Amino acid sequence: MAMDVVIREVGLRDGLQSLPTVVTTDRKRTWIREAVGAGVREIEVGSFVPAKLLPQMADTGDVLGFAKTLPGLFASVLVPNLRGAEAALASSADLMILPLSASHAHNLANLRKTPDDVVAELGRIRAARDASGRKTLIEGGVGTAFGCTLQGRVEPAEVLRLMQALLDAGADRVSLADTTGYADPAAVSRLFEQVMKLAGDRFWCGHFHDTRGLALANVLAALQVGVRRFDASLAGIGGCPHAPGASGNVATEDLAFMLQAMGCETGIDLDALLGLRARVASWLVGEPTHGALWRAGLPKGFASAVPAA
Amino acid sequence: MAMDVVIREVGLRDGLQSLPTVVTTDRKRTWIREAVGAGVREIEVGSFVPAKLLPQMADTGDVLGFAKTLPGLFASVLVPNLRGAEAALASSADLMILPLSASHAHNLANLRKTPDDVVAELGRIRAARDASGRKTLIEGGVGTAFGCTLQGRVEPAEVLRLMQALLDAGADRVSLADTTGYADPAAVSRLFEQVMKLAGDRFWCGHFHDTRGLALANVLAALQVGVRRFDASLAGIGGCPHAPGASGNVATEDLAFMLQAMGCETGIDLDALLGLRARVASWLVGEPTHGALWRAGLPKGFASAVPAA
Repeated sequence: MAMDVVIREVGLRDGLQSLPTVVTTDRKRTWIREAVGAGVREIEVGSFVPAKLLPQMADTGDVLGFAKTLPGLFASVLVPNLRGAEAALASSADLMILPLSASHAHNLANLRKTPDDVVAELGRIRAARDASGRKTLIEGGVGTAFGCTLQGRVEPAEVLRLMQALLDAGADRVSLADTTGYADPAAVSRLFEQVMKLAGDRFWCGHFHDTRGLALANVLAALQVGVRRFDASLAGIGGCPHAPGASGNVATEDLAFMLQAMGCETGIDLDALLGLRARVASWLVGEPTHGALWRAGLPKGFASAVPAA
Repeated sequence: MAMDVVIREVGLRDGLQSLPTVVTTDRKRTWIREAVGAGVREIEVGSFVPAKLLPQMADTGDVLGFAKTLPGLFASVLVPNLRGAEAALASSADLMILPLSASHAHNLANLRKTPDDVVAELGRIRAARDASGRKTLIEGGVGTAFGCTLQGRVEPAEVLRLMQALLDAGADRVSLADTTGYADPAAVSRLFEQVMKLAGDRFWCGHFHDTRGLALANVLAALQVGVRRFDASLAGIGGCPHAPGASGNVATEDLAFMLQAMGCETGIDLDALLGLRARVASWLVGEPTHGALWRAGLPKGFASAVPAA
């Protein structure tokens, strides 16, 4: 399994957006700087949403501006609509992610739009990007790809239909997210195999929440069908507003440990990452954090960083 | 992945033995009865060790006697030596497990014997079993199969040598345990593939601790090379005396959920198992418990029990 695997840190967006604690812009800068120092090469730094909806994300423009000063960092942001995309273009984000829920019920509840309305918005974002002359890539992210609490199961055929529609509307990249911990390794194998076939090298990223403890097993299943980029959140922050204490995204440090133990190259120095995890956790006193490696430490004799081949 | 997979509950032994709380014999009986009610068919009920060493296990004879009254339950016990095996034979255990550490340093520290001394003891246990006329099966369990805190990495060749020696000495079954959270899915694939080749249908059980969060991913890797029986501990109890708060065995309820979500048949009713988990956790106030499913609950529309095919 010697191969390069990219971990995209999403704690600053998917993690922080659901926590009541507002982390200061200075601390976000520290987080990004130290993550890059630990070898992280892609970070989702925030979300261009109205500040009154998500005060935690109000400084996304500043944070993105800082991220753009760091050589070698690929900085992405979430945008819920064309207005957010215009902000991302103005700030020269490397990539912007437009999320869509494959669950119609979830999409309506969260965005007050149908999934196909979001597809149409992606088309408008593509036109705006092309007109702007910016190089910002557009990622269409299909969430609740395995089901959600509102709707229950989501049909794989609907996931594939929406992913094709996003590509047709002009997405440069597409991703698949188990936002709710509804996936299992067998379902991941089946759906990701089809998705990889459909999107080819435009398939970008797998995103697994650890709601029911299966995130790393699901990553393994996706890795086995060829996925090479995963979202993760330092200390597993994120959770779900409907399940107090529930785990959020797969923890970056545990994912990096698993991949490096398997011989995959992530470029990450685990000791440095664990140091950063401790610092971030110290900013989030009273918030649930997750993951296992920070408690147990690395196995005796385990190399903190895999040297480049 | 429609296949039968057996979960052997080991919380009453591997879980309880490391906790300061002594669970009463009555409560152990309740645990076993309700586990069987929830569809669990194999339970390691205790350990025949001197009561002054492990007071939590002092009632193993009584608990095993109770387990033997439950139709359809296959009851096993841990035995550290011939004396323990004689107790297991006297109580007509269905199976007794003699543990051995592939790490010489760990074996010496825990048992004050070399691994080959344990192999020799297994030979004596086999002779005693054969002379007794009992049907109690003998399982040789190779622990710290991927490494340990004392020694670091353990060589796969040494694991295979010891497993062959256990079989040669008369073990009816052999098992492999990552007692310390040193395994990763790639290492599991490699080692279990060799072990399955070596032991054939005498290979019995995979045992994974969740020390660094990889237990379920490691189970998946073992499942993919043909392992069909796994140890697990309700609420993930067990831990490690050297790492306060660290996870113990993979949590039974999370393992059963993963397997059933994948379409494997475990015979377990997850709602009943979660009810039992809550009861057991209520006996262990102040002790760390683990797992994710108990917090999040089953996905909407998920069948608690897979009907027999």
